[in-house]
Amino acid sequence: MIARYTRPDMAALWSESRRLSLFLEVELAATAALEASPSSPIPAGTATRLRQLYAQVGPLDPRRVAECEQRTQHEVLAFLEHVEEKLGVDARWLHFGLTSSDVLDTVLALQLREATQIILRGIDDQLLPALRRQATAHQQTPMIGRTHGIFAEPISAGLVFLGSYAEIERAKVRIQRAQKAIAVGKLSGAVGVYGSGCFSPDVEAAALSSLGLSVETVPTQVVARDRHAELLLALSLFGSAIERLSVNLRHLQRSEVSEVEEAFAPGQKGSSAMPHKKNPISAENLCGLARLLRASASAACENIPLWHERDISHSSVERVIMPDATTLADYMVQRAAKLVGGLSIRADRMSHNLLQSGDLFASEKVMLALVRTGLSRQSAYELVQRHALSCVADRGGLSFFDRLRADPQVSERLPEDVLGHCFEITTHLQHVSTIFARTLPE
Amino acid sequence: MIARYTRPDMAALWSESRRLSLFLEVELAATAALEASPSSPIPAGTATRLRQLYAQVGPLDPRRVAECEQRTQHEVLAFLEHVEEKLGVDARWLHFGLTSSDVLDTVLALQLREATQIILRGIDDQLLPALRRQATAHQQTPMIGRTHGIFAEPISAGLVFLGSYAEIERAKVRIQRAQKAIAVGKLSGAVGVYGSGCFSPDVEAAALSSLGLSVETVPTQVVARDRHAELLLALSLFGSAIERLSVNLRHLQRSEVSEVEEAFAPGQKGSSAMPHKKNPISAENLCGLARLLRASASAACENIPLWHERDISHSSVERVIMPDATTLADYMVQRAAKLVGGLSIRADRMSHNLLQSGDLFASEKVMLALVRTGLSRQSAYELVQRHALSCVADRGGLSFFDRLRADPQVSERLPEDVLGHCFEITTHLQHVSTIFARTLPE
Amino acid sequence: MIARYTRPDMAALWSESRRLSLFLEVELAATAALEASPSSPIPAGTATRLRQLYAQVGPLDPRRVAECEQRTQHEVLAFLEHVEEKLGVDARWLHFGLTSSDVLDTVLALQLREATQIILRGIDDQLLPALRRQATAHQQTPMIGRTHGIFAEPISAGLVFLGSYAEIERAKVRIQRAQKAIAVGKLSGAVGVYGSGCFSPDVEAAALSSLGLSVETVPTQVVARDRHAELLLALSLFGSAIERLSVNLRHLQRSEVSEVEEAFAPGQKGSSAMPHKKNPISAENLCGLARLLRASASAACENIPLWHERDISHSSVERVIMPDATTLADYMVQRAAKLVGGLSIRADRMSHNLLQSGDLFASEKVMLALVRTGLSRQSAYELVQRHALSCVADRGGLSFFDRLRADPQVSERLPEDVLGHCFEITTHLQHVSTIFARTLPE
Amino acid sequence: MIARYTRPDMAALWSESRRLSLFLEVELAATAALEASPSSPIPAGTATRLRQLYAQVGPLDPRRVAECEQRTQHEVLAFLEHVEEKLGVDARWLHFGLTSSDVLDTVLALQLREATQIILRGIDDQLLPALRRQATAHQQTPMIGRTHGIFAEPISAGLVFLGSYAEIERAKVRIQRAQKAIAVGKLSGAVGVYGSGCFSPDVEAAALSSLGLSVETVPTQVVARDRHAELLLALSLFGSAIERLSVNLRHLQRSEVSEVEEAFAPGQKGSSAMPHKKNPISAENLCGLARLLRASASAACENIPLWHERDISHSSVERVIMPDATTLADYMVQRAAKLVGGLSIRADRMSHNLLQSGDLFASEKVMLALVRTGLSRQSAYELVQRHALSCVADRGGLSFFDRLRADPQVSERLPEDVLGHCFEITTHLQHVSTIFARTLPE
Repeated sequence: MIARYTRPDMAALWSESRRLSLFLEVELAATAALEASPSSPIPAGTATRLRQLYAQVGPLDPRRVAECEQRTQHEVLAFLEHVEEKLGVDARWLHFGLTSSDVLDTVLALQLREATQIILRGIDDQLLPALRRQATAHQQTPMIGRTHGIFAEPISAGLVFLGSYAEIERAKVRIQRAQKAIAVGKLSGAVGVYGSGCFSPDVEAAALSSLGLSVETVPTQVVARDRHAELLLALSLFGSAIERLSVNLRHLQRSEVSEVEEAFAPGQKGSSAMPHKKNPISAENLCGLARLLRASASAACENIPLWHERDISHSSVERVIMPDATTLADYMVQRAAKLVGGLSIRADRMSHNLLQSGDLFASEKVMLALVRTGLSRQSAYELVQRHALSCVADRGGLSFFDRLRADPQVSERLPEDVLGHCFEITTHLQHVSTIFARTLPE
Repeated sequence: MIARYTRPDMAALWSESRRLSLFLEVELAATAALEASPSSPIPAGTATRLRQLYAQVGPLDPRRVAECEQRTQHEVLAFLEHVEEKLGVDARWLHFGLTSSDVLDTVLALQLREATQIILRGIDDQLLPALRRQATAHQQTPMIGRTHGIFAEPISAGLVFLGSYAEIERAKVRIQRAQKAIAVGKLSGAVGVYGSGCFSPDVEAAALSSLGLSVETVPTQVVARDRHAELLLALSLFGSAIERLSVNLRHLQRSEVSEVEEAFAPGQKGSSAMPHKKNPISAENLCGLARLLRASASAACENIPLWHERDISHSSVERVIMPDATTLADYMVQRAAKLVGGLSIRADRMSHNLLQSGDLFASEKVMLALVRTGLSRQSAYELVQRHALSCVADRGGLSFFDRLRADPQVSERLPEDVLGHCFEITTHLQHVSTIFARTLPE
Repeated sequence: MIARYTRPDMAALWSESRRLSLFLEVELAATAALEASPSSPIPAGTATRLRQLYAQVGPLDPRRVAECEQRTQHEVLAFLEHVEEKLGVDARWLHFGLTSSDVLDTVLALQLREATQIILRGIDDQLLPALRRQATAHQQTPMIGRTHGIFAEPISAGLVFLGSYAEIERAKVRIQRAQKAIAVGKLSGAVGVYGSGCFSPDVEAAALSSLGLSVETVPTQVVARDRHAELLLALSLFGSAIERLSVNLRHLQRSEVSEVEEAFAPGQKGSSAMPHKKNPISAENLCGLARLLRASASAACENIPLWHERDISHSSVERVIMPDATTLADYMVQRAAKLVGGLSIRADRMSHNLLQSGDLFASEKVMLALVRTGLSRQSAYELVQRHALSCVADRGGLSFFDRLRADPQVSERLPEDVLGHCFEITTHLQHVSTIFARTLPE
Repeated sequence: MIARYTRPDMAALWSESRRLSLFLEVELAATAALEASPSSPIPAGTATRLRQLYAQVGPLDPRRVAECEQRTQHEVLAFLEHVEEKLGVDARWLHFGLTSSDVLDTVLALQLREATQIILRGIDDQLLPALRRQATAHQQTPMIGRTHGIFAEPISAGLVFLGSYAEIERAKVRIQRAQKAIAVGKLSGAVGVYGSGCFSPDVEAAALSSLGLSVETVPTQVVARDRHAELLLALSLFGSAIERLSVNLRHLQRSEVSEVEEAFAPGQKGSSAMPHKKNPISAENLCGLARLLRASASAACENIPLWHERDISHSSVERVIMPDATTLADYMVQRAAKLVGGLSIRADRMSHNLLQSGDLFASEKVMLALVRTGLSRQSAYELVQRHALSCVADRGGLSFFDRLRADPQVSERLPEDVLGHCFEITTHLQHVSTIFARTLPE
């Protein structure tokens, strides 16, 4: 992933040096568990000795490993060579009875668990609170609702944020489930049946448990790839949730609407040509990033049907999409939280636009009032529609209310106070607090 | 979806006539709940009367609705017109205070819940049992494991099916979760705030509960589309699970392998040109269908970011993918179950291929035995690799065992019985029963 | 594809009966060419006799073929059985030396060529002319240009349509190229090497040429699937071009903008709840359909890497996406043409919005004028930006022009007539006619 | 893109410092063209002076630009600030009348043109020649063809490579067309109408022509994004072509088949657990990379429908996919060329497998011979099928030929020499040279 969208935590997590240290962590956990098992081939104390030695001789060197890989064309064997160089003869007990994928997939599980943890923490600590604050602050701010982009009936501005709150909550739950699905390692060897005779299901469970991971129930040489696809799909749904919010914030910022505004820092410039421009660039940026998450997810799905006990076609894909997708998702969490937190919500513009929409929002209630008087639904609809459309066609002419009042077909059925009642805006917001109450935990 | 891949249950569920009857079912549930609410505008007994009348005058006519839609260009209004024709004046109380999407989305929830139910039932009753039977029957049938398509070490044939059993169990859980996510309706009106003053959160909850549905927490004009995307993604992961199984069954059927065989009915023909052909067409067909499920899922994700309180761009997509994806998934369940159930598993061929693989599968255990004697991992690896690769290069020459035995570097470290022990195949299958036990419920 | 989006030509082209008649057409073309070759096994006159007989005994019966397929599980053999029933003993010379895919792929080429022809004809005869008419009619209609949804500088309304004209021209060229890429058949038998000894490259070329098709250069059992993917990708780019247009027409129709309006027929209804609504449903519908085209294209790409001389995994995919994608594309052409043709372009609203945008559009020209006086770009930018942003912040306050004029830093550099010149709108449209001239052929 | 898959040329092309120098190159080309135009505001000699100054003061500093961008949050303005720092007062004439996208999109065109050039050169100089060599070397090497993975009829091994040669030729042509489609710049200012009054279509054409680019016919603020999508789609089709080849090379390398073998370097290791393993890792790697190209293409398609005169949602996507997809495609070209060039083709194993397939490949010719004797196609088919399937069922029993000869139904119709003629393998390869001749240019 490019530096522009990478925050330091993710950069560190996916760095080569971190990866090598996790390789060793997994090897040591495996060695320790094997050493502790009955009939272990490994002399007691080996894992501890290696761990101490490692603490002394310092971190592994990615460049040295890369050199070895030039020759072996095998990453894990290159790592093991380097470890033997650094830790000496006892290092031969590392990787004893394991295959590369035991290490690679278990390390990937550790990385993905931590990456999702960073993302989830950001959602919980930054994004959801920001949404909740804006939602609550504008729970009763009236705003014209728009369906198909056309003025419909009033809502409250807070609902825009509350809707995203609820959707991102659902996205979060999916990420949590996926986190559990990928927090799974394997130490079952070359084809997943503990065939070397060293590791057993029990030893594997002990080692993985010391790393906080579960066991892949039916491993092949690798952990099954539907688990990873589930995570990438969950991230892509999170991205699409952010996109829905961002699309709407872009709409609300367009010049004719101007109901919200992204923060614009001192010194910031909107356009190289047009000094007057302030653009919703954060919301636009987030829309683009959502596309990248969806793209990664589609590649992850193609990784599932590996051949027999595994082929390595998924590996090149995962080297790219695993760091990229988690890094992007983390960046999106933070940027979206900042965007939402920094928005100016312009109640004055909302009220202005609501007024501009005229009094057509009452059309439904007038129609229902006519139906109550015994008119068929279809007749009521067409009567109301006629006045409404002439009102639209003749901007600046008579109001909808006046047109209706002047029509005897209406006035003989609806006395003026009943008709007037249909035009009250308070009806529209009366249940908003209930919607909030059922969505936001105390 | 084309007839070829449509089973009768799905055809009925997604038919126009079923859709219209569900429209009416939802309208009646809404009317009944509204009627029962305090200060209801609707005269007591209306819902019951309409229901009785409907029972008498018989089903709605899709062709008549289509005619009305020609004029209104609005499906739900066309439906309501037809209902007013059939059920007379009381029908004006239907749809009272509702918007089209209240009906459309609630009906879609009912259809998707039933569609997923059909799929889940097929998984539980047909597909998982078929996999379990083949897995159990071949729990101890030795087979050469293949990584990268290359002979690796022995596994049991049952594990191929057990792995799919576990993966499809995971796929099932995702579908179940998604089923819950989409079993959600809304009766909150034009922009989701119960703005007509007729429906309230309580009345909505009562009506939806009578249909077995939950309430959309923060509706707009519609139910949020991440819910539907979650279902389509879950189906696509199910499809990919089927694809992994199918890819492997195709591999196992290829002429050089011939370890399994699809059922071939009397009268069946494999090729118009070559009378000798029997092809794995079911497994191939399933691989193709998985691609269609992935494609539908990607369209569903693009439906999420609707504008403001909704736009209708998702509608054309859903008219196609909702019936198509659920119908395909159902077909895949059944075809996969039949495929698995009808397979001939050829233990003789497995044993033949295992033999063909020679005794190279022991290379890991020999290397580990050498490491135990104090040799560094790298030296042991290279010693064993040298003999193994010359063995591969010289098919039909000395066996791997004989080559090792003849090498003093090996023999001075490993007495013949220790070396021989490395070549025992039983080691490889000793933990298979544990894998089965942790996967299959009693 | 569902009936709602299927026009009669496409329905006929993709019907079962048309498919069977094309099967026979290809078989007869092959038989005729083989018969005409030196050392043909087929008695002279056979193809003619069969063709005459077929003209007498009437069309093939899809139901009967379906019955045969029940038993053979092979579509082409079922077809041949039925043909032998209908045409008698001479029918044994049909399919002589061919394999099913010779017929299937050659028929698919004929169908796809015709389907793309229908699409291309619609683009040429309906869609491009409609765009051209609207573009030309509004070549000089001023409209505020919007970048990031924010008022930028003036353009002409005609450019919106001209831009789509140019993009759809590019899309058309891609479809034409793809049409050529798939107008390719094969009659090279079971594995593409004319192995039965009957057909030769020459006979194949003669037969395909009689059908207006080229020869697949290096066939396997099938025509290579990158050809079909190219077509689906070209259709998806066409769909995305339509989507760009539709997104913008939706924007221009939103209530606050109201610069264009979709046709609204007498009797049409916009919303079941709100009689006042007129919604941009055609533009929204087209956005959804573009997603379906992209989805089909992604499935088509996964069809490319078939195994060895072919596997049949592509078949189930193509049975769905080939009719669906071409049918949808055809529907989109027609619906987009009707949408564009029926639009009301509201120059009054454009002028109103342009006025609303104030005089900020001049910010660039003022900045450049200041740079000409020797000010550094950065200083000029910041000077202009300061006035522009305060103008935005203070809606209804002093105009941008007045603010600049009152600032001595500006006025000492730019005399009032020079400053005033920056605010002339005519500058912005002076090159529009050149853009038109370079885009539209005479 | 990660270092592992990045070759130096691509790294340089997409580096920040190269990007900045291209920014300046475009600005200077624009300034020079503007300066040369009648009524230019820019003093004569400015562009030349700036160019000379730049040659003296040395390259721009990406870190300094990044610093400026921190404040302005605008990349091009940050660049211009840095240029003013470096080049002094004359630098104010740069970007005169331009908008950021004029620079960004024109630079992107230069980068993409060069990137595709690198890719095309690799295809022409490395990949196609490697395929051609292998194809030609094995034009007459017999090999059993496989459909559905099942033995079918003989082909030549060279056809495997020739088929890829033809498909990659087609892919190349698509990339060439796309290269032309994106070799397009724009200098038409803020909303594409040359609104600042400085640039005109003529000046733009002159400037772009000096860079070797064409003009975007109907620009908005940006170049239309269908052009970029076309390139990404072309790359994804190239990737899928490589995938088809790679899938088949993996098949041919699987242990049971062993007809080809990837190069295995001295010191290379196949598996950390199993010293005997040599795996087809290059072919597998390439299959994975093809998925990444498809994913990038799908993101590029979503970039097309920008809002109005542009929104910036495409930018974040392109910052990632443009370097990534071109870098990957270049890596794939080289790796595939090396893979193909280094393959061992094992004619001995091909001949062994062909023999293993028995004599069933003759089934078609026997059937046709029976049809010639007057038997109906269906009867002939079933007669031959019966013997063929019993032959398959009874491996090691009577040969197909012997079974047929022993059946009076056959022998009374086909004398032994006629029957024997059906079993000749030479028939199958007689037209291979024609296929080669029509595919390979002299």
